[in-house]
Amino acid sequence: MAVLCKPAIAVPEHVITNEETLELAERLHADHPQLGLVLRLIEHTGVRKRHLIQPIEETLRHPGMDARSIVYEEQTKERVPAVVRRALDDAELEPQQIDLIIYVSCTGFMMPPATSWLINAMGFRPETRQLPIAQLGCAAGGAAVNRAHDFCTAYPDANVLIVACEFCSLCYQPTDLGVGSLLSNGLFGDGIAAAVLRGEGGTGIRLERNSSYIIPHTEAWISYAVKSTGFHFQLDKRVPGTMEPLAPALCDAAEGNDWNAGKMDFYIIHAGGPRILDDLSYFLDVPPGAFRFSRATLTEYGNIASAVVLDAMARLFDEGSALDGDRGLMAGFGPGITAEISLGTWVAESDTA
Amino acid sequence: MAVLCKPAIAVPEHVITNEETLELAERLHADHPQLGLVLRLIEHTGVRKRHLIQPIEETLRHPGMDARSIVYEEQTKERVPAVVRRALDDAELEPQQIDLIIYVSCTGFMMPPATSWLINAMGFRPETRQLPIAQLGCAAGGAAVNRAHDFCTAYPDANVLIVACEFCSLCYQPTDLGVGSLLSNGLFGDGIAAAVLRGEGGTGIRLERNSSYIIPHTEAWISYAVKSTGFHFQLDKRVPGTMEPLAPALCDAAEGNDWNAGKMDFYIIHAGGPRILDDLSYFLDVPPGAFRFSRATLTEYGNIASAVVLDAMARLFDEGSALDGDRGLMAGFGPGITAEISLGTWVAESDTA
Repeated sequence: MAVLCKPAIAVPEHVITNEETLELAERLHADHPQLGLVLRLIEHTGVRKRHLIQPIEETLRHPGMDARSIVYEEQTKERVPAVVRRALDDAELEPQQIDLIIYVSCTGFMMPPATSWLINAMGFRPETRQLPIAQLGCAAGGAAVNRAHDFCTAYPDANVLIVACEFCSLCYQPTDLGVGSLLSNGLFGDGIAAAVLRGEGGTGIRLERNSSYIIPHTEAWISYAVKSTGFHFQLDKRVPGTMEPLAPALCDAAEGNDWNAGKMDFYIIHAGGPRILDDLSYFLDVPPGAFRFSRATLTEYGNIASAVVLDAMARLFDEGSALDGDRGLMAGFGPGITAEISLGTWVAESDTA
Repeated sequence: MAVLCKPAIAVPEHVITNEETLELAERLHADHPQLGLVLRLIEHTGVRKRHLIQPIEETLRHPGMDARSIVYEEQTKERVPAVVRRALDDAELEPQQIDLIIYVSCTGFMMPPATSWLINAMGFRPETRQLPIAQLGCAAGGAAVNRAHDFCTAYPDANVLIVACEFCSLCYQPTDLGVGSLLSNGLFGDGIAAAVLRGEGGTGIRLERNSSYIIPHTEAWISYAVKSTGFHFQLDKRVPGTMEPLAPALCDAAEGNDWNAGKMDFYIIHAGGPRILDDLSYFLDVPPGAFRFSRATLTEYGNIASAVVLDAMARLFDEGSALDGDRGLMAGFGPGITAEISLGTWVAESDTA
């Protein structure tokens, strides 16, 4: 069965602390009628700092969509290969051994997808299958793991490379002044993650089962307006309350494997925001520390969209506490409102292929 | 093994003939230094007419990206469900029996993807997996079939709904005056296709094997520039010559199944343009009539991007000439330059589930 090996992570060099974010919000929106609420929300995100691909002065300037698209592509080409290289090294594989690349990114758009460029630039085989996903937002990290799992179920000796590349700062829209937008400006960060799912061999999380769940009639709650200025992120205030309807889907997924979602050995949860994690630990009845990997991602990097779950997963590997046979639950959340759910077992060292 | 059932197709009600396209090009670009070449290229596309979601006067107006995005979403919601309903009926399935929706469209962008809306609007289960693909261009029709095939290989009793929705006319850019752009303006049409891959039962094409191939270092040959005015399609003049390097990939795919790519009983080929079909029939050494389904799509609808392969497939079903056990080759081509290749066998009537 397929094993998800240690993810490689990179965050950019430009750092903004939460204090700086609060100062900035106060300065830029001094006259905003709901400034107090915005500041309280940003204060309570649990974010300590975020990393950005450009200095904050540059980030706050919208140079137009034509220029932003060029930056997105340049930054992708500059930053992604080293992360992919590390993920391959961690999985002890060469590019030639990869059969499918799943590339998720909702913060820019390229056609052909970045996978085509990566194949040429890094020496993947011309026969490598390409699966770019741009429209699943933060849930795409979980979706990538799940579609990789499906692929290895179909072809048990295949290897899949997953890449999540999110430059959320390139979706900053200075004219969006709703509370949801201002909160998002203080919540999202940039980050790149990559991981390999090995069909045979490997150390990490052996994937057992996956599922998806959409909360009926909530499409409008997280969405993009696609405009001449690019993607405009729209966040409904009901989103933080979505763990109540999603927790039962996580429980059902676990029960499908005769597991109990409240009694897992490890949890990899999308850290969309602080209430997501607080509510989910309440509804699953797990101690607050159970979500420590996700909380650390949120604290250190902010919400890095589809890359969150892979970053949280990397922290599980780094902690080194998982024991052979430990059971875990993974869940990405995003627009739809959709949950991409996965169950896995820790494999300290599997039979090498 | 999974059987691809009869695709349902819809083209919009506004029709433009090739004569009208030529008159329009002459009128709009009277001073263009290469007008003669452009007219000759459009004359030789093999397109007789194309169907558009709006009257031509409306199509030629660019109302700005904000308005276009709204039209894209409105037209999607207005036109897609009826096609999906027919595809389900042809496969004798209800929405509740679908496990995965693969939705491909490169001519607009929505987040959440149209799959989320479809699930709610048409009564698919909340557990339905969603796979939206926006970045594979014309190759996405083939990619959708192949990823659906992989999914049914992993889960043999699963059913997958494929939707290809292309409103190419919403990518018309009045300021793009290169020869490739003007040719594209006369080549692409709008169309919607849907088909169901049944894990068990069904009449149609039993999928046997799939593969992908990218021609090294050709990413720039078909691409979008993503600008404030939307997607700008960029077509290199080397594209029509790509069948020489792609034909061997099709031969390899067939050989992998001990088949001969030049001796298939039916062919479903992306009708990117007339030379694609002429060259491929030359390099595979097949008679011109072998690609009659693809030629008919090109003649009747123009290049409808990712929907071409499903439309050509529907024509195979309509002709009614395929016999049980007949062998077929399917191939979608698109940016990368990528080919998505599939092998299948005609099943007159399989065991029902």
